[in-house]
Amino acid sequence: MAGNSFGQLFKMTTFGESHGPAIGVIIDGVPPGLSLSEADVQVELDRRRPGQSSITTQRNESDRVEILSGVFEGKTTGAALALLIRNEDQRSKDYSNIKDAFRPGHADYTYFQKFGFRDYRGGGRSSGRETACRVAAGAVAKKILAQHKIHVTAYTLAVGDVHAKNIDLTVIEKNMVRAPDLAQAERMIQKIEEARKDGDSLGGIVEAVVKGCPAGLGDPVFDKLSARLAAGLMSIGTIKGIEIGSGFQISKLRGSEANDLFYSESGQVKIKTNHAGGILGGISNGQDIVLRVAVKPPSSISKLQETVNTAHEKTVIQVKGRHDPCICPRVVPVVEAMIAITLVDCLLIQKSIR
Amino acid sequence: MAGNSFGQLFKMTTFGESHGPAIGVIIDGVPPGLSLSEADVQVELDRRRPGQSSITTQRNESDRVEILSGVFEGKTTGAALALLIRNEDQRSKDYSNIKDAFRPGHADYTYFQKFGFRDYRGGGRSSGRETACRVAAGAVAKKILAQHKIHVTAYTLAVGDVHAKNIDLTVIEKNMVRAPDLAQAERMIQKIEEARKDGDSLGGIVEAVVKGCPAGLGDPVFDKLSARLAAGLMSIGTIKGIEIGSGFQISKLRGSEANDLFYSESGQVKIKTNHAGGILGGISNGQDIVLRVAVKPPSSISKLQETVNTAHEKTVIQVKGRHDPCICPRVVPVVEAMIAITLVDCLLIQKSIR
Amino acid sequence: MAGNSFGQLFKMTTFGESHGPAIGVIIDGVPPGLSLSEADVQVELDRRRPGQSSITTQRNESDRVEILSGVFEGKTTGAALALLIRNEDQRSKDYSNIKDAFRPGHADYTYFQKFGFRDYRGGGRSSGRETACRVAAGAVAKKILAQHKIHVTAYTLAVGDVHAKNIDLTVIEKNMVRAPDLAQAERMIQKIEEARKDGDSLGGIVEAVVKGCPAGLGDPVFDKLSARLAAGLMSIGTIKGIEIGSGFQISKLRGSEANDLFYSESGQVKIKTNHAGGILGGISNGQDIVLRVAVKPPSSISKLQETVNTAHEKTVIQVKGRHDPCICPRVVPVVEAMIAITLVDCLLIQKSIR
Amino acid sequence: MAGNSFGQLFKMTTFGESHGPAIGVIIDGVPPGLSLSEADVQVELDRRRPGQSSITTQRNESDRVEILSGVFEGKTTGAALALLIRNEDQRSKDYSNIKDAFRPGHADYTYFQKFGFRDYRGGGRSSGRETACRVAAGAVAKKILAQHKIHVTAYTLAVGDVHAKNIDLTVIEKNMVRAPDLAQAERMIQKIEEARKDGDSLGGIVEAVVKGCPAGLGDPVFDKLSARLAAGLMSIGTIKGIEIGSGFQISKLRGSEANDLFYSESGQVKIKTNHAGGILGGISNGQDIVLRVAVKPPSSISKLQETVNTAHEKTVIQVKGRHDPCICPRVVPVVEAMIAITLVDCLLIQKSIR
Repeated sequence: MAGNSFGQLFKMTTFGESHGPAIGVIIDGVPPGLSLSEADVQVELDRRRPGQSSITTQRNESDRVEILSGVFEGKTTGAALALLIRNEDQRSKDYSNIKDAFRPGHADYTYFQKFGFRDYRGGGRSSGRETACRVAAGAVAKKILAQHKIHVTAYTLAVGDVHAKNIDLTVIEKNMVRAPDLAQAERMIQKIEEARKDGDSLGGIVEAVVKGCPAGLGDPVFDKLSARLAAGLMSIGTIKGIEIGSGFQISKLRGSEANDLFYSESGQVKIKTNHAGGILGGISNGQDIVLRVAVKPPSSISKLQETVNTAHEKTVIQVKGRHDPCICPRVVPVVEAMIAITLVDCLLIQKSIR
Repeated sequence: MAGNSFGQLFKMTTFGESHGPAIGVIIDGVPPGLSLSEADVQVELDRRRPGQSSITTQRNESDRVEILSGVFEGKTTGAALALLIRNEDQRSKDYSNIKDAFRPGHADYTYFQKFGFRDYRGGGRSSGRETACRVAAGAVAKKILAQHKIHVTAYTLAVGDVHAKNIDLTVIEKNMVRAPDLAQAERMIQKIEEARKDGDSLGGIVEAVVKGCPAGLGDPVFDKLSARLAAGLMSIGTIKGIEIGSGFQISKLRGSEANDLFYSESGQVKIKTNHAGGILGGISNGQDIVLRVAVKPPSSISKLQETVNTAHEKTVIQVKGRHDPCICPRVVPVVEAMIAITLVDCLLIQKSIR
Repeated sequence: MAGNSFGQLFKMTTFGESHGPAIGVIIDGVPPGLSLSEADVQVELDRRRPGQSSITTQRNESDRVEILSGVFEGKTTGAALALLIRNEDQRSKDYSNIKDAFRPGHADYTYFQKFGFRDYRGGGRSSGRETACRVAAGAVAKKILAQHKIHVTAYTLAVGDVHAKNIDLTVIEKNMVRAPDLAQAERMIQKIEEARKDGDSLGGIVEAVVKGCPAGLGDPVFDKLSARLAAGLMSIGTIKGIEIGSGFQISKLRGSEANDLFYSESGQVKIKTNHAGGILGGISNGQDIVLRVAVKPPSSISKLQETVNTAHEKTVIQVKGRHDPCICPRVVPVVEAMIAITLVDCLLIQKSIR
Repeated sequence: MAGNSFGQLFKMTTFGESHGPAIGVIIDGVPPGLSLSEADVQVELDRRRPGQSSITTQRNESDRVEILSGVFEGKTTGAALALLIRNEDQRSKDYSNIKDAFRPGHADYTYFQKFGFRDYRGGGRSSGRETACRVAAGAVAKKILAQHKIHVTAYTLAVGDVHAKNIDLTVIEKNMVRAPDLAQAERMIQKIEEARKDGDSLGGIVEAVVKGCPAGLGDPVFDKLSARLAAGLMSIGTIKGIEIGSGFQISKLRGSEANDLFYSESGQVKIKTNHAGGILGGISNGQDIVLRVAVKPPSSISKLQETVNTAHEKTVIQVKGRHDPCICPRVVPVVEAMIAITLVDCLLIQKSIR
């Protein structure tokens, strides 16, 4: 318990503070015999890495991963897999000015209330830096999914009020904001640059699509695939909403519109629409899983903000440090990771059922 | 595992099919010494009961609860609490015509794929009838929360395109649709009646507010309060989206707008806005918790629908039986229950921390 | 948590007090498609039933089981299986004299300390009556094991200082004490009758053998098969010790004696001795699993005993009611049940691995 | 799952192979505000360290621990605590001769059957080396227990047929074998030296006493303190039996002898005997907790042994490497660690109850 673990049969446990010596993840339940190298993990970490482009934080972390256990002669053994990432660019001094003040939008106040104590170095455990461990575990999960021809792709659907108009999965990694629409990507980047110049930040929407997912994943009642995905995604600090398929729009439909009608084609059961987003009764139906998450604008902004300190006195704060003006492009691999980890867990559970 | 349990220290496990002999719930971890009678549970079950008004299903279930264990001389003992509800009006015959066909929007196809087998009586385990057990457990949770002066209230914010314009918590139980706005409630009810006459159904949005929640609930990383609430609410079969605080709207804000500024008043830390919905970094901040869920239109409609059967042949189906044209009024107590259960669990965990 | 659940993929949750309205068990994770009737469960419950012979308690409980969910048309559906047993012969009055006194050897004092509260009716939740639920769940587990040709057999190896000299599994159910040796069974029964006449009770040792268990069950490190069996068996209230294979005797051996040497026969890896009791490194090795548990003499005796009451005053107690002079014969099916449940769980987990 | 985690609110997850780059442990649920340094952990690791005396393995590992997270300014923060130990003296070459053969008494064969794959370097994950992580976590647990004036002490009660005759806790750390009786310790050491000279090994018994444990720890039914201790201790690879209080001897007693009578002294409820070993109905009764475990002779011996290889061919093996002729002295801190970890978990759970 205490919140640092996720999953049942494929279970990750993470540790590490933003400005401590290292962060890492243990994955229990990795199937034996999977080819796995540090390079397999590194490629995903590089997609989340700070400093990857002009619109991300300039904190300088190479995020080099080291496999500490669970792999022998290039293959997973079935033993716990441990992945370690040393922190390099810690600069704790940057945070001395906020030592006693509660930064608006951050977890400073709530951690202080919860633990009676606070690691003020860059948010400590509450920092988004912990998501690197999710991405590392997600890289392992994606390799397992690939064996089952399941592919998870996320992208920035919107930044502020700029929405992608086309969905072309092939261009996502070709623009800094990871949008599926190059033209709109340009406008999104421009908006982000403007916000940064203002010492401000921007929110957005990330969408994800899972292709190739078989029917039958997820469990009845409380462990529905939808519930697990919601838990995994809502546990990303920056996310304030999740919807599956038509999501909040479905509330405006009638049943005759919202029900996806089944038909049969080449011996496969298919559906004519996908309002359900690939999940019926909490269990995957073999169609594309489609979901969206609401990403809040980063709370760290260089604008002056009013707040209080630990003595409950009024004070003014300016969050220095090197921050992301919009976290969407770096949340994309985190969203993919949480989905991939959830699906692998469900796959293993389903193996035990049929 | 296998999905029928929810919670860590305050943990419920449910069982029962829509048309089997009974449904029920075991709650493990109920604090000892709590006054509890069947009447305490019944009052909440009556809010979810079928047949309670002209806009709900006319299935006739009195939903009488029996306490089987965990209470002695009117008080909980610390032992597992078991609550049983016998099914009375089963009418399995109503479902014979759908025995081999997959109802659109339902879990028929996905359960069949998952288990290679299907209990076709009214959806079996996938039926919304299981939520009665959540409400029963929620009644116990609410009694515990009341001791801490924490109150959870949900209501129908929208039905189709009709939104509540005012939020008056005192009128919720005074209209059939459980809206916080009597004028709009009338319009909602009218819309529902229209849909029913058309053999169709309507979706909506349910909002919930928690008052009196102390700061410090929820855990770091994966067990954030937001993640737990999302898991609990998204596990309700009819829900396709959840957002906390400003939710999807936050994606359009800048950080300087979205950050809730702290100030101090009478020795209390407060916030000027509540975009965060009472949760910062996944932990409650002592303000009102506010969230919304997207409720899909019930899949059971009497309109003719195309589908396929277990032999993958094309067929046409008409879902008979007695169904809800809009499930919002009956989802309201279920939403409250899942929130209450989650909060009690977090309260007990927090007791172990500080 | 709170202790009423056991298992991971095949998970049981039990409830019920000795003198409340009913006891029961929910089993989550029962594989779909298993033929299951109430008679399948009843046959095992009858082996544990009170009043089954002249050397067991004369409490009159028929222990009729009712299947409430999880079975449709005679087969398990994959949904949670719920089994209910109503208490019939409660006679709570028998316990009024011990309402305020702590019975020696019982959990009266510890429950009072734990919960600040006590259900004094026959021990409430701490009564051995809860083991009926384990036996009911064990009946389901045994059916699953039988499909894999795995068979669990337990028997009374010793009562007091009378040990079985031969192990003949075919005679176990042919004598009241469930010993594998008819001649020694007679002596055991005689000893038990003597103890009963003295208003006293007797302890013993129960041994179990699992035949047909495949290699590979159990997990590394903390979830070793040996650790799980130990947890399951030591959770039976009356058991104070467990040993696997040569157990405590192995402490007197040298490695060259204790190591079971491998050899190959008809393409099968076998071992020449079985000091390990079928478990190496916590994982089954394909040989017979052999273990023993120490069973304490029942604490309920009619002899006068000194004790204290809730006011810490000295008092004298005589435990009336109808009790077992030796619990071994009725513990036998409980031991089998806990082993069977543990093995099914491990089988399902192993299915998810390979 | 997959076995690398232990505990509920105070939960450790370990990783690492005997001959991989490192081993380590993450502890979730460490209470915030506890003073903790690497030296606190090191002192316990040094008690388990190889090469500490002439009767332990001469493998040269300094077992230096590094705190990677969860501590800030010398105090625990409530975040996950990660402890890392690099392996130094790996000498994998020593194991090349056993690459294809199954060592008798080891987990080689069972891991191969379980995972279809085997890390043959010194047993990989099945090596006793993993217990260093338990000891590291145990050091943290002991610091927490000390705040509650609870002390756990284990010692070597017997080596082969040499038993301690006196129990003097003050001499345990003053002899290489960690016996509570200096005279018998000499004889034990002599026996161990003899076995080593013969290329053989010796088993023994380790006993543990917990002083200062409050009444009320442990949960009803499946999570009894006795069951948890049994699970934790039986998960140590070398242990084949556990008994609490009078353990297997209780099977020979009558109820009137085995029941510990309560009396009152200075307002405290006490017992006249301690056959129950401090645990009644699975819950601590405030008296000393006393238990014993059976320790098998190390399976690694330099004597020639017959076995089979992965092709099921007969072969002969000589386990080279540097091994312990008797593991009792090094198991003592591991036993203490598992008990301490279990008790802290129960303490935290009890905090949530009352």
